[in-house]
Amino acid sequence: MDKRPIGVFDSGLGGLTAVRQLMDQLPGEDIIYFGDTGRVPYGSRSNETILKYTRQDINFLMSFDIKAIVIACNTADTAAGSIVQREYDLPICGAVRPTAKKAAMVTKNNRIGIIGTSATIRAKAYDGIIREYNPGVEVKSVACPLFVPLVENYRTQPGDPVTEMVVAEYLQPLKDWGCDTLVLGCTHYPLLSEIISGFMGPDVALVNSGREAACQLAETLRRANMLSGNSEPGKVRYYISDSAEGFSNMASAFLQKPVEQLVSKIDIERY
Amino acid sequence: MDKRPIGVFDSGLGGLTAVRQLMDQLPGEDIIYFGDTGRVPYGSRSNETILKYTRQDINFLMSFDIKAIVIACNTADTAAGSIVQREYDLPICGAVRPTAKKAAMVTKNNRIGIIGTSATIRAKAYDGIIREYNPGVEVKSVACPLFVPLVENYRTQPGDPVTEMVVAEYLQPLKDWGCDTLVLGCTHYPLLSEIISGFMGPDVALVNSGREAACQLAETLRRANMLSGNSEPGKVRYYISDSAEGFSNMASAFLQKPVEQLVSKIDIERY
Repeated sequence: MDKRPIGVFDSGLGGLTAVRQLMDQLPGEDIIYFGDTGRVPYGSRSNETILKYTRQDINFLMSFDIKAIVIACNTADTAAGSIVQREYDLPICGAVRPTAKKAAMVTKNNRIGIIGTSATIRAKAYDGIIREYNPGVEVKSVACPLFVPLVENYRTQPGDPVTEMVVAEYLQPLKDWGCDTLVLGCTHYPLLSEIISGFMGPDVALVNSGREAACQLAETLRRANMLSGNSEPGKVRYYISDSAEGFSNMASAFLQKPVEQLVSKIDIERY
Repeated sequence: MDKRPIGVFDSGLGGLTAVRQLMDQLPGEDIIYFGDTGRVPYGSRSNETILKYTRQDINFLMSFDIKAIVIACNTADTAAGSIVQREYDLPICGAVRPTAKKAAMVTKNNRIGIIGTSATIRAKAYDGIIREYNPGVEVKSVACPLFVPLVENYRTQPGDPVTEMVVAEYLQPLKDWGCDTLVLGCTHYPLLSEIISGFMGPDVALVNSGREAACQLAETLRRANMLSGNSEPGKVRYYISDSAEGFSNMASAFLQKPVEQLVSKIDIERY
């Protein structure tokens, strides 16, 4: 048993969809969340810069006595995940590998669609890993650059005419192609699940990278006998690197429940 | 006569719409452009952070021997313009005041609509200044947070169904209200002029903050006898603070002409 908290970070608040999954799967765990809102988005930065930011994010989380880390950011995981996993002496779970594995296992017709930010799609983050687990799979990727701004403007309700139109435009090629599995390769996208599912139809399985990262961490902690063993709900503490204005509303949207805790602003450049 | 270049900065590349206006109005001037693409957007930062960034942007431009500065960013101008105008010993022209003045002069029915990012609208940057010039004016402001992502995704062509729908949604209240003047209070918005004008109708005058900032600078230099006097077209040099990937395409869109010059990446935190 290990009562120390779990650290989770993302370039912004999208990673809270992974926190939401951790709360469901491991309700007795304490969590420290860091959202690098002062430097979001990572997607347009160079790999060198993303690696520097990722190290700082981890250093900040390690200023608490944490037992493991979740990189709840597809961009940071792709650019820096395997490097920091070698550098730091605690379990670090990324979002990409468990998500790719899940998709490779779930597909029946061996056609997997992948959606993500332009940076994630350009990096072909998922393609190779999916084929490691299932070499017969065909993969088709589509960048959906307007999804993050739509989510950040709360345009996530089914029936929103703009979001419905954008979803249809981006996903029509994947629907026509006939994938039976769709990877939501960005932690913002679970908020669009209902609209995406409505468009793709009930036979297409959506794979949520926040959920898969949480599953992976749960398994890692269970095997290492590092779960907290608490029966009461764990505490979550939130840290961000820029103005807290609007944090509660956005965080409540990602967590799908009200956020009552305070959020603290920190200077990430110091770490 | 003063042959030194003019410095122009913005939080990103939107300020290139002001460079385009400078090229038209003052074709013989050399220009140094800095786009703080590594720290964009400024709109979500605290005023203290924006002031720090603005000083660094100016310090970088002053590492060249420049004669004047244009703040081609409504957010930076609102949060820090009047402070840096007192701190630095060269002419610094913001975008907000000349744009507000122009709108106050142009309106005939005394109803002015203002559109901008959430930060600009929340700060009520234009309202007070417009009334300084024309106390009888009524002002109605609408935040248009999806316009910047639409522009940055090149969704600016008339007929684009998503952009047409978003423009109609945001601007319908201003159209119903009957303003005869609309302030484009963000340097990205001139790229949407055609769609905005098509929706609002030919009787609504659009006031472009990049153009007004350029006019103001031209007048300042003329009065102080600081124009270059060159008859050949001036040179423009571009600097940004993050990856140059995609720079040429986006810059060409904002400038409405091909960008052939190279762009250099600099470390703005050093200034």
